[in-house]
Amino acid sequence: MAVYTDVSEGDLEAFLGEYEIGSLLSYKGIAEGSENSNFLLHTSGGAHILTLYEKRVEASDLPFFLGLMQHLAERGINCPLPVVRRDGQLIGRLAGRPAAIITFLEGVWMRRPNANHCREVGRALASLHVAGRDFPLTRPNALSVAGWRKLWEASRERADEVEPGLATEVDADFAEIDRNWPADLPAGVIHADLFPDNVFFIGEKLSGLIDFYFACNDLYAYDLATCLNAWCFEKDHAFNLTKGIALLAGYQSVRPLEPAEKAALPLLARGSALRFMLTRLYDWLTIPDGALVQKRDPHEYIRRLRFQRRVTSAREYGIDV
Amino acid sequence: MAVYTDVSEGDLEAFLGEYEIGSLLSYKGIAEGSENSNFLLHTSGGAHILTLYEKRVEASDLPFFLGLMQHLAERGINCPLPVVRRDGQLIGRLAGRPAAIITFLEGVWMRRPNANHCREVGRALASLHVAGRDFPLTRPNALSVAGWRKLWEASRERADEVEPGLATEVDADFAEIDRNWPADLPAGVIHADLFPDNVFFIGEKLSGLIDFYFACNDLYAYDLATCLNAWCFEKDHAFNLTKGIALLAGYQSVRPLEPAEKAALPLLARGSALRFMLTRLYDWLTIPDGALVQKRDPHEYIRRLRFQRRVTSAREYGIDV
Repeated sequence: MAVYTDVSEGDLEAFLGEYEIGSLLSYKGIAEGSENSNFLLHTSGGAHILTLYEKRVEASDLPFFLGLMQHLAERGINCPLPVVRRDGQLIGRLAGRPAAIITFLEGVWMRRPNANHCREVGRALASLHVAGRDFPLTRPNALSVAGWRKLWEASRERADEVEPGLATEVDADFAEIDRNWPADLPAGVIHADLFPDNVFFIGEKLSGLIDFYFACNDLYAYDLATCLNAWCFEKDHAFNLTKGIALLAGYQSVRPLEPAEKAALPLLARGSALRFMLTRLYDWLTIPDGALVQKRDPHEYIRRLRFQRRVTSAREYGIDV
Repeated sequence: MAVYTDVSEGDLEAFLGEYEIGSLLSYKGIAEGSENSNFLLHTSGGAHILTLYEKRVEASDLPFFLGLMQHLAERGINCPLPVVRRDGQLIGRLAGRPAAIITFLEGVWMRRPNANHCREVGRALASLHVAGRDFPLTRPNALSVAGWRKLWEASRERADEVEPGLATEVDADFAEIDRNWPADLPAGVIHADLFPDNVFFIGEKLSGLIDFYFACNDLYAYDLATCLNAWCFEKDHAFNLTKGIALLAGYQSVRPLEPAEKAALPLLARGSALRFMLTRLYDWLTIPDGALVQKRDPHEYIRRLRFQRRVTSAREYGIDV
């Protein structure tokens, strides 16, 4: 949510010389993107996004992220297409950082998604899972159970400052996850962060998926569980069954879930709620006030986690099991 | 340098219904603008800037600012043109704030302007002064001598924390300004904040002037003095005579300065350096760390002020007097 690095016009002109997208018309730092500096770039060739990758992104992961976008776009997924440089590469350097240019997708993200949007995002998520099947690179999910444990070890001692009793609650989540986390469900490339601000619509029609910088290999149903948490709750933290039904039906219209995936969904949703609670908690406790990096209140996901602990069957999300 | 207010897609769709610029394609909060929330808006009718006016802008000043842009654009100045709503107004309300849509100007601002850019900006400033002559509204300069004195009264006690001896230095500036500040020079509408980030270029050609939210009625030569400070110094605080010559020649190619304006230029430049030093000093001392509002280090303008105190003739800026 910030521009961490400014770019001078001279450096940018030189960088654009490596591409065949025309001459520079304008560039504006935009207040979007998880951890990078993003600019909306207008050239005589059209609108693009220029991204400078900041410290929190591993440069060695960039071929996976950019290659995946290219792979998915070629298979008809509405996602940004990395622009190929004259030297055939997707990644260059600008202002001392790895940098890339991707196509700009029109569309707005839904601050208040409705059931139709949930259905569309379910369909798009399943299409992404299908289109990613033959992507040749792999990237382990750094934010799966082992990664959560590291965050928890760094946060546990101060967790009760944020919410009394949280340490005990979360210890029990880890015990349950250690006993029952599924290992043999269908897996492949997942988005891993498909929140509403990463999905664009024009009118009621889904126009694009963005921000593939958490993409990795993991369980498909875990990705779906993340969307359940991110799309189907109201501002008052109540689960909206109509939205749950729509999301799951949209997903299954493209890729039907296997019985074992349905059975695992409540635990996966609990794990996913834990994952987002933990990154928010860790940032909340460690990032100083006033830093440019955005801090999100962990309470929203403490509520999600409490909800998911009580779910005993995917039927409660609005799916036939 | 931030987006203070987010806008929901539903509210924005409704707001756009008041205009005839087509349907919403995308909007991105941009990290530009002095004190307002700005969005780069793409509609089926093209690119626009959506501005939400935050607390630091007086709503009663908006007809002056927006009317001035309209007036100047109609007279061939490359500045944003406010889009007229269906009801004939230039200003509406969005997310609880006064809001307007203006045309988007392509171009990039020069992080490292050269003498040619200085000549262009001089010419554009004089053209603005000429084009503004018949603008019917007026707005006193809230940041002229009386305004500076208020800022100084609020900052003086802690000024030496920032730079030892500053309080005594600035008291002497005020004494000199009180004795000699000119009153009878040519005056009219001035931009009052024509720093490099408010002037766009495409290649070497000036493509636009933006951010009229400090515009007011004051001495033309004072506006030019502000540009001398903002454009003609190097990063090491040295005055660049080549740039000074270019800026002044560019200005005079459109509007020749009167002898009395030339004679007053050193004091006006000293006053202008004081003005920007004081707003930066005040913000530096009063805005908490971590606030969204950008704080600029006052030292740059302490250096400018010290330079300008020693200038005895506009000849030193590269002008024949």
